[in-house]
Amino acid sequence: MIKVGVNGYGVIGKRVAYAITKQDDMELVGIAKTKPDFNAMTAIEKNHDVYCSIPENIGLFERRGMEIRGTINDLIEKCDVIVDATPGKIGAKNKPLYEKAGIKAIFEGGEKADTVQCSFNALCNYEEAIGKDYVRVVSCNTTGLARTIRPMLDIADIGRIRAVLVRRAADPVQSKKGPINAIVPVTKVPSHHGPDLKTVLPNIDIVSMAVAVPTTIMHLHTIMVELKDNISKDEIIEAWGKTPRVKLISSEDGFISTAEIMEYARALGRYMGDLYEIPVWEDATNIKDNELYYIQAVHQESDVVPENIDAIRAITGIEKNARKSIEKTNKSLGIR
Amino acid sequence: MIKVGVNGYGVIGKRVAYAITKQDDMELVGIAKTKPDFNAMTAIEKNHDVYCSIPENIGLFERRGMEIRGTINDLIEKCDVIVDATPGKIGAKNKPLYEKAGIKAIFEGGEKADTVQCSFNALCNYEEAIGKDYVRVVSCNTTGLARTIRPMLDIADIGRIRAVLVRRAADPVQSKKGPINAIVPVTKVPSHHGPDLKTVLPNIDIVSMAVAVPTTIMHLHTIMVELKDNISKDEIIEAWGKTPRVKLISSEDGFISTAEIMEYARALGRYMGDLYEIPVWEDATNIKDNELYYIQAVHQESDVVPENIDAIRAITGIEKNARKSIEKTNKSLGIR
Amino acid sequence: MIKVGVNGYGVIGKRVAYAITKQDDMELVGIAKTKPDFNAMTAIEKNHDVYCSIPENIGLFERRGMEIRGTINDLIEKCDVIVDATPGKIGAKNKPLYEKAGIKAIFEGGEKADTVQCSFNALCNYEEAIGKDYVRVVSCNTTGLARTIRPMLDIADIGRIRAVLVRRAADPVQSKKGPINAIVPVTKVPSHHGPDLKTVLPNIDIVSMAVAVPTTIMHLHTIMVELKDNISKDEIIEAWGKTPRVKLISSEDGFISTAEIMEYARALGRYMGDLYEIPVWEDATNIKDNELYYIQAVHQESDVVPENIDAIRAITGIEKNARKSIEKTNKSLGIR
Amino acid sequence: MIKVGVNGYGVIGKRVAYAITKQDDMELVGIAKTKPDFNAMTAIEKNHDVYCSIPENIGLFERRGMEIRGTINDLIEKCDVIVDATPGKIGAKNKPLYEKAGIKAIFEGGEKADTVQCSFNALCNYEEAIGKDYVRVVSCNTTGLARTIRPMLDIADIGRIRAVLVRRAADPVQSKKGPINAIVPVTKVPSHHGPDLKTVLPNIDIVSMAVAVPTTIMHLHTIMVELKDNISKDEIIEAWGKTPRVKLISSEDGFISTAEIMEYARALGRYMGDLYEIPVWEDATNIKDNELYYIQAVHQESDVVPENIDAIRAITGIEKNARKSIEKTNKSLGIR
Repeated sequence: MIKVGVNGYGVIGKRVAYAITKQDDMELVGIAKTKPDFNAMTAIEKNHDVYCSIPENIGLFERRGMEIRGTINDLIEKCDVIVDATPGKIGAKNKPLYEKAGIKAIFEGGEKADTVQCSFNALCNYEEAIGKDYVRVVSCNTTGLARTIRPMLDIADIGRIRAVLVRRAADPVQSKKGPINAIVPVTKVPSHHGPDLKTVLPNIDIVSMAVAVPTTIMHLHTIMVELKDNISKDEIIEAWGKTPRVKLISSEDGFISTAEIMEYARALGRYMGDLYEIPVWEDATNIKDNELYYIQAVHQESDVVPENIDAIRAITGIEKNARKSIEKTNKSLGIR
Repeated sequence: MIKVGVNGYGVIGKRVAYAITKQDDMELVGIAKTKPDFNAMTAIEKNHDVYCSIPENIGLFERRGMEIRGTINDLIEKCDVIVDATPGKIGAKNKPLYEKAGIKAIFEGGEKADTVQCSFNALCNYEEAIGKDYVRVVSCNTTGLARTIRPMLDIADIGRIRAVLVRRAADPVQSKKGPINAIVPVTKVPSHHGPDLKTVLPNIDIVSMAVAVPTTIMHLHTIMVELKDNISKDEIIEAWGKTPRVKLISSEDGFISTAEIMEYARALGRYMGDLYEIPVWEDATNIKDNELYYIQAVHQESDVVPENIDAIRAITGIEKNARKSIEKTNKSLGIR
Repeated sequence: MIKVGVNGYGVIGKRVAYAITKQDDMELVGIAKTKPDFNAMTAIEKNHDVYCSIPENIGLFERRGMEIRGTINDLIEKCDVIVDATPGKIGAKNKPLYEKAGIKAIFEGGEKADTVQCSFNALCNYEEAIGKDYVRVVSCNTTGLARTIRPMLDIADIGRIRAVLVRRAADPVQSKKGPINAIVPVTKVPSHHGPDLKTVLPNIDIVSMAVAVPTTIMHLHTIMVELKDNISKDEIIEAWGKTPRVKLISSEDGFISTAEIMEYARALGRYMGDLYEIPVWEDATNIKDNELYYIQAVHQESDVVPENIDAIRAITGIEKNARKSIEKTNKSLGIR
Repeated sequence: MIKVGVNGYGVIGKRVAYAITKQDDMELVGIAKTKPDFNAMTAIEKNHDVYCSIPENIGLFERRGMEIRGTINDLIEKCDVIVDATPGKIGAKNKPLYEKAGIKAIFEGGEKADTVQCSFNALCNYEEAIGKDYVRVVSCNTTGLARTIRPMLDIADIGRIRAVLVRRAADPVQSKKGPINAIVPVTKVPSHHGPDLKTVLPNIDIVSMAVAVPTTIMHLHTIMVELKDNISKDEIIEAWGKTPRVKLISSEDGFISTAEIMEYARALGRYMGDLYEIPVWEDATNIKDNELYYIQAVHQESDVVPENIDAIRAITGIEKNARKSIEKTNKSLGIR
């Protein structure tokens, strides 16, 4: 049983912690929180052992009636692996703590690629991460791109990929962030998402642009792929159909926006109403003049959750076969 | 075992259907849908028997590969009670079907009060509904008001209650409804919500006004209550603390908006991420110059779900004690 | 000609600067800005003299090719009155500058009442401000309440007023502020708006509550007024009809939300598409059981603009009659 | 003086009517409205002659105290040209009225291209429209693309253009349309926008995809252009700088989203706070590996307004030189 701690219990941390409890080859030692807010209340209600990541804040938890098992260092001492789900750039600051304790750690997409030994996506480069000490699960957007681009590489000779990412500007829980009524372009063009995908799929030619829009529930990607040889839409659809964590949907079933997708996801009954899969509109997939067009959505809160579980298996080496880890994770989380 | 069918499998229907499957004294016979959309996909995945409420649409389901058990009439025939969760005003049109079949039916708050023999809120008038054939669970907003006003009646002599309802303009699943950037007042003043509450609490003096705003996740109520005698804030808080389906929260725990409340609710792990309880901000409760001020939120998608279960028990008479039914329902749905 | 400078050229400052240029008894000396952004570009294009309120930032303006006339101190020296339209609480910090220079100043509603000698609303207490050195135009919300409550005092014996303010969470220009999808209650209840109104209408009994919602264009107020004697809706409507800066509207003309109001305002052709008046829904006004109900909206960006002009006249004493100043201001700004 | 009538006085109609009144070679005869709502109030206040486009509705206007000059047929009789600014697809239904009266007409982008003799963009194909009877000003999005793509054709050999359009889901005045919290993809891919641009720029290779997002103020386009020869970013920027109705902006001036752009536009003081120009982020323009990347926004309510004026000159032949018409229109509307 791999002993895992989760540092940070926000949007990603609480989901990874939950997912760990569903595995039979790993154990959740505890979670670390900075302060006794509603997220800490959740951890307590879920009977997780709670550690305090800011030692001087322990008193705040006690005053709120929340039992604390120790500091982040106490948690680290009991673990084989830490999943660092703290806000972007904080992971890099925490890394020395893990190094000093001599334990492995997994970071999230908000950290820079050079913080770690390798970036990670189960479908793309599971093997590369085996035995590493510090890996980074690529961001929700990069994960989404990896899932639908990777399977095409096996069946088609593809040229330049152009992706425009229409990002949700804030997560459902973020009540202070806007905009309320505007579109915010990422003025660095091409955006960093293309290069980020190359950290797990180095041999592709991809460029990207991005904008943020006033919605909280999902990102949406419009993707154009140059095809160098003849391949049919049906072959692409078939490849996606066989790819784990990709889900084909159609507007004819009422999926006319990200709203219906998340309604469907909630109704599936998974924890937090999550959708771990990348939904791709089958009826918005088209090939014309040697170019493939398709549209997918990304549940930014959860698509990286199964990747984190796989990453734990890869760096600890308890499972060296990518496909087996993916299947095991999927089964544990109800992903078909 | 009471045999229950659910007509309509949208926002309310799917939740009531789920809740029925969690009861040990009732059984879900099946659900009825008009068309084979993503909601129907959910019903199939949940292994519910699906009936078609528009007979001529059966072919559509078949073409989509969805097995249909029959028409709405076939469903009605097999049931003791139908929960009609069709859109507002459609329930009244369906009522003759139920009358003809001689079965009992529960309607939702979108129907007019005079469609039924009595309106229903478990805390307020469970006994009145016992043995009736047609009752109506009052709307999400009225249910929210009933939950926090009812317990005050036992401990204080209260005068006029004034409630302003800030309503979510659309449910999360509704992608066509606006406004995107405006506030829409209900220009009928006082609004219908005050009189609607009197259908279950006839002896109170309440007036209300309402506006709709561009959010999907929760309604919010600001309430002012004239107090005729001395009562302390602590006594009110204590009364709410003992009331089933009322939950005290505080902005000090990070609940600064409806966003954090729903995040917390999702993390509880209930089906659809629901919050059946009415959250009341303890720190936004105040008494000044013989007037009580408080603020509560309403998860419009789910607060009536346990009420529907209680209503089934009341009209069938399988449980004649309100408190016992409430406790049984709460336990089955994880409400503490 | 009263010489006026405007410190701050954001949402309020740019509008007050514009309004000053439309007066024949005052002159805009210049405006002060902290940095050379798009608002500074506007000032340059409008041929305003631009002063730098942070001396060390002058270089930034020069590098952007914007000519600067001097520092805020240079501006102060040339003025009889400064309108301080800097962000909330900054005005209080600037006050010593004005005191030192021995000039009068007008502050906005973001400053505390005790920063100044008196708060100000032209309709309520113009006379009180005559000859004062430091006054504060009350906030957009308080101004809105003052406009419709003041005229009732002359015709009715009113009791407690209860107002619930549904506030826009950010201005149209604010692209970083949320929430995107939540309702944020003001958990201090009653809210500060009631007491704030008493700074200009001391003898009323008003209590208020407030929430913020994801819209940018207008606030909306729902108001309930206890009436101690018999007065008809028609008399109230007639009084509002005769009140300057109040505008009666009806949902029958298509004003179903704040969106149509602002569309109508833009079409009037005023600067920035502003609506200086407080629109009140005539068809949402009702009296029942000795209580008046009504709904009004507030264009938060502009309703205080004519009040600032009147305040300049009052403190400088160039016009001692409130009604005359109001009429002069209204005529200059196209308010009928 | 060309006599012009405007059929429809909504988002586009009111703006075109205004623009006509600013021309010295044309005259606004009147406008036609279907019903006496707040838009009709605007027309009355602007002293436009109002005609009723649904004869049986004349009584409604009279009851509302609005003077009507006659029916749409009476208006047509007095005009040389009608600008049909009715909702999409209604223009095609109105066309027989204009044909029967033997007058020319201009339609908007909501009509199909084959409704008219040619589509129109002043910069692209003014000459083609000279002397035609029925032309169609292309949509706001197509106009935006035409403005920045046309000037590149003169200086570079360009290959495939790929545009992703992030559309505002509703106009500011539309209070019923959503979504409130979702992204809605156009599932027809490639979208119709590419082919539509070819109606005025037939010799380019452009493909497009589109999504709608919950904002009301502007569309935003992300554009990728394959370059076949060496051209520098500076040359592109210089070409745009010389192109009428294109405006270079930079995020360094605070234009970080569409919100600040529209704030700046409002402050310019044009009617309705409009921005007729297409703003392009200079700092988000980049060339890398023979591909140009750029981002522009589109004020969907107004960018076609000057095009309508030019179109009137073209079809009536009162100005046969495109550049002269553009300059005349620009000067009249304050476009530099």
